Parts: sequence; structure tokens; C-alpha cells
Amino acid sequence: MSVGEGNEQYGRKAFKRSKSHFTDRITADGRDGWPVEAGRYRLVVSRACPWASRAVISRRLLGLEGALSLAVADPIQDDRSWRFTLDPDDRDPVLGIRFLKEAYDARESEYPGGVSVPAIVDVPSGELVTNDYQRLTLDLATEWTNLHRAGAPDLYPAGLRDEMDAVMAEVYEDVNNGVYRAGFATGQEEYEEACDAVFRRLQALSKRLTRRRYLVGDTITEADIRLFTTLVRFDPVYHGHFKCNRWKLAEDRVLWAYARDLFQTPGFGDTVDFDHIKRHYYRVHTGINPTGIVPLGPDLSGWLTPHQREELGGRPFGDGTPPGPVPAAEVVPPQGRP
Amino acid sequence: MSVGEGNEQYGRKAFKRSKSHFTDRITADGRDGWPVEAGRYRLVVSRACPWASRAVISRRLLGLEGALSLAVADPIQDDRSWRFTLDPDDRDPVLGIRFLKEAYDARESEYPGGVSVPAIVDVPSGELVTNDYQRLTLDLATEWTNLHRAGAPDLYPAGLRDEMDAVMAEVYEDVNNGVYRAGFATGQEEYEEACDAVFRRLQALSKRLTRRRYLVGDTITEADIRLFTTLVRFDPVYHGHFKCNRWKLAEDRVLWAYARDLFQTPGFGDTVDFDHIKRHYYRVHTGINPTGIVPLGPDLSGWLTPHQREELGGRPFGDGTPPGPVPAAEVVPPQGRP
Repeated sequence: MSVGEGNEQYGRKAFKRSKSHFTDRITADGRDGWPVEAGRYRLVVSRACPWASRAVISRRLLGLEGALSLAVADPIQDDRSWRFTLDPDDRDPVLGIRFLKEAYDARESEYPGGVSVPAIVDVPSGELVTNDYQRLTLDLATEWTNLHRAGAPDLYPAGLRDEMDAVMAEVYEDVNNGVYRAGFATGQEEYEEACDAVFRRLQALSKRLTRRRYLVGDTITEADIRLFTTLVRFDPVYHGHFKCNRWKLAEDRVLWAYARDLFQTPGFGDTVDFDHIKRHYYRVHTGINPTGIVPLGPDLSGWLTPHQREELGGRPFGDGTPPGPVPAAEVVPPQGRP
Repeated sequence: MSVGEGNEQYGRKAFKRSKSHFTDRITADGRDGWPVEAGRYRLVVSRACPWASRAVISRRLLGLEGALSLAVADPIQDDRSWRFTLDPDDRDPVLGIRFLKEAYDARESEYPGGVSVPAIVDVPSGELVTNDYQRLTLDLATEWTNLHRAGAPDLYPAGLRDEMDAVMAEVYEDVNNGVYRAGFATGQEEYEEACDAVFRRLQALSKRLTRRRYLVGDTITEADIRLFTTLVRFDPVYHGHFKCNRWKLAEDRVLWAYARDLFQTPGFGDTVDFDHIKRHYYRVHTGINPTGIVPLGPDLSGWLTPHQREELGGRPFGDGTPPGPVPAAEVVPPQGRP
């Protein structure tokens, strides 16, 4: 996401996450004018961003790599926001643009809001379709089904949606967004309230996950994806940079094993770029890290250690199967891996 | 210490610790004009400061509380440096001054350097005698012997000085001062060099302490005091604030047990004020923490858990005994304790 997650938000009284402005949906029936179609859309992400990373994981688990192409922005934004400076000529090879903002401008001229990822862009017109990070992955799971790979899991099972929605709402408020409220707090009280909420919720989640392998049901769902993208960033950035430091993830036996289990599941860890994550947070948020120095830690080798969560049972992909290997062009470089 | 450990040093190319300017020694024979004398001198410290905390611990272990009185400065300096704002009327009740700087000025007018703790002040004249943090504790151990309590340990045993000096020099360079070099680095390379050195040395120390209870010999010495004052600050401030985050102290089984063993030894943990430590670093160094927000973590309860280091043998106080309880006026308030 990172609409104004950097310095502009930072001077305000309390951190408020912007609502997505572009909320058109890409659906099977095309009712918003955007029908699901293989090869038509491009998913623009930053691997640094937890909100965008949800979509990267969903796309992998569902086997949408061939149908929905991927543009990875540079983890360091400049004053024009997300840039394609990792690509030849600093230009996205499919959209032909240098900044994601160009797709926003193509959709709505003089749009005054921030530029955020994840974003889906309509390739033929170059227009942004949606930056609705809350809806986007649910639609990948439920509207793009005709394009799913054989054996794709059901990430938003109809019978579990009420429970999932409730869990995801709590996780959003206290964890996904809670770490940002702590990190971007400008006052002691605001920080303490947010940090307390983060750890209260993590403690409850740790308890919940003591005897069950996954958050809801006995298979991987969107709820796990949403918790994972925060947990994987916890020790590298939220613990120190956002001062969520009562304990490290690695100090909570249950959550640490849960996170490692997911990390080692195809489609999760193989999308994570710790180099992008650390450089983005520590270099972009000069309001809380004026030197821009990126820490050497934490030691990441633990991510690959045995987790023993299989003993809890569960069927990671339900009646489905794990995704195949990462497409060669999308493999995370060695410096981003544990 | 904290001569310019705050913002003024911070803008420079590389962090250089100032040498002490006032290096007179208080000795048994009084050769510098300052003879050891009960009641004559006042030790000025901040409980936040690792260099000053060495002296607080030595004074306790040696039972010098009655002979050498203690002034505790506010952990938050202002532009006039260390203040006695914890005392009635914001004035040290014995020296009658509001700022430690007044004792510096009494000794040398227009002294251009910084004001640092630990400092020993001559009460009758109000003059600073020494701020030589490297020498000061060694003199407490070797020159103040006539005033030591019965059963005081030998903190700088004659037969072990070469080994101690070598160990303390390495610990100073890479650990005591290394964390500051990492934390106050203004460039990535400078930071990485310092942070690497911190953890290389900690790893070597962890290995050394695997089979021996104390750093040198089989009793507590000055070498342990000097390592302890950095270790006790490691997770609360150096890990996050100074970016020494490869791992927490609590993640290294040996060093964490070693630090807890000392913490639970009378004279060590009973001098530690985590509230002063955290507020000092996070509020004073606005160059690296512009918001001045003080983190809620880490969870400190682990400091009081069993360490099992007794199994390694060792005789904490050698032929001596542990110190008695902390004088009532010097007890660390509850908010500073685990």
C-alpha cells in the first residue's frame, strides 16, 4: 500500500490509513466493466509492502501467474512514488510507464490522492482499475476461478466467510494496521495504545494457533495470508523500526512456528524479499529513521528451520495441491532470501 | 559518560568518543592533591549511562556507600547537560548545584568540552576532581581499600591485571563503545563495520563464557562489571535504537544466562534503572529518534528467571561476601525494575 505511509502522513496527529479510492472490481461477469480475462491485466506490487504481498501470494497459490502478469516496483519510492527503476530503462516493459502514477493519471486526471500498491492496471488502456487492497485478493480467490490452476486451494471458502471476516477484521485493526499506528505515532500515548493492541492481539492469536494449524478451518485461507504478510516483516522491521518490541516473533514459540510453516509452504516464502522489505522501511521513512541506515539484522536463518506444525494435522491445500515452482523471471534474488 | 553522545556528535563523519579531560586521581597517598577520605567526595552519575553505572556497581560491591556519597542526575539532559532535576528544588542537596556543569566550571573556567558522568566532585570546594571513566573504577578498587567494607571483593586482582586489561580493551572497543559507533553512524558502511564488530565480539565472549562463570579468573572482577553495563542495556536500547539487531541478548543462551547471573547478584541488578535507561536514550538522541517516543518493550521479566550458572562453579566474591542491601535512599523505584 504505502499511500502516504512515508513522511506526509507522519506529521499528523494520529496515523489514519487512507481508504482505497479506486474500487472497481474485476469480476467474472464484468459488471463494473472489467471482466476477468487472461493476459489483460497487470498486477503492480512492491515486494516490500505487506498489502501488495497478499496479492503476490494469492496469485501464486491460485496459479494465476500466466493469466495476470506481475510488475515489481523498486522498494524505494521517490517523490513521484512507486517507480519501475528495477526494469531496463527504468520502465515497466509491459505498461511502458516509468511511474505507477502514470496509470493513476490515465484513469483520473489530477487525482489528488496517493499512489498505492497493490494496483491492477488494464494493459490495453494503461488505466488503473483498482487499488482496493482489501477487496483485490478476495476477488482473485472468488472471481478469477476460471483461470485458477488445477488443484488451486479455496482461499475464501463460502462456509467459513463469516468467521474469516471477523478474524481478518481483528487482525487488520490490531496487527496489519496496528504496527503502522505504533510506528507512525507522533505521541507517546498514541504509540502505547497501538503497541499494546498489537501485542494483545498477537497473544490471542498465539493462543488460537496453539492447537490449530491455520487460523480458520483446517486449510490455508486468505486469513492466513493476511496474518503472514505482517508476521514475516515483524522482526526485520516492525520490532525495531516501528517500536513493536515487547518481544520478537522469534520469541513466541507458537506464532514463530506458524509463520515458519507458512514461509516454507510453496507460494509464501518464495515471494518474500527481505532485502526489499528492509530497504523500503528504513530508507523511505526518514521521519523515524533520519539516517536511512538499514540494519544488518535480524539473522534470518531461522526461517528455514523445522517447525513441526504438521503434528497439528490440517490440510494446507485442502483437496488441492501446492503450486509449482516460481516462474524464472519472478525468483527473488539471493540477497532477499534467508 | 555522554560527552556529546547526543546530537552534537551525531552530525560528524564517524563517532569518536572524547577522552576524559579531567584525569586527576584520588589516591591513598593523595599524590595528585586528592587523598582518599571518607565523606569528602561526591560521585555524580546517571543511572542511564553505562560508563557511570560501572562506578555505581563498584561502589556497591566494595561497600563505599557510606564513604562516597551518590548524586543521581535526571536521565534527560537539556542543553546545559546533566541536571539535578530529580532533587528538591532541582538542586543537588549536598553540592547545592543545579547542573553538573557548575562543578566543571568551578574547576576550570570556560572549559570548552562536554559535561560527562561519572564525575567525582570535591564537596568542600565544589570542584570537579575527575571524569576519567576508565580510571575511576579501578581506583575505587585499588586506592580506596582502607574504606572498603569487610568482605569486599578484589575487583582488580594484581595477578590477573594483564589478562583483564586485554579483555577489557577488546570489550571496550567492540562492545562498550562499539554499540555507540553503530548507533551514531551516519553512513551505512560505518554502521555495518561497527555492528559486525559488536556481534563478532559478543560471539567470542559467548564462547569464552560457555564453560567459565566469569570473564577472568573465577570471581567477579571489573571486567564483568564493564561487560554487564553494556549487556543490561542491549535489548532495551542497543538492539533497536542503535540497530545492533542481529539477535537480542535474550537469544544467546550463554550471554543471557551470564547477564542474568550478574543481574541477580547483589550490587548489579539493584543498581539498574530501566526507566532511566530507556528514557535517556530514546528521548535525548533526537537525531536517531526524532519523535522521542520511548518503546514499551522489551518484556523485562526474564531478568529474574533462573540462570543455572552456579553449575559452572566460580566464587562470585572470592574470599569475600556479597554486599548488604541497597541504602534506602538509593533504591531504584518500581518503574525502573523488571
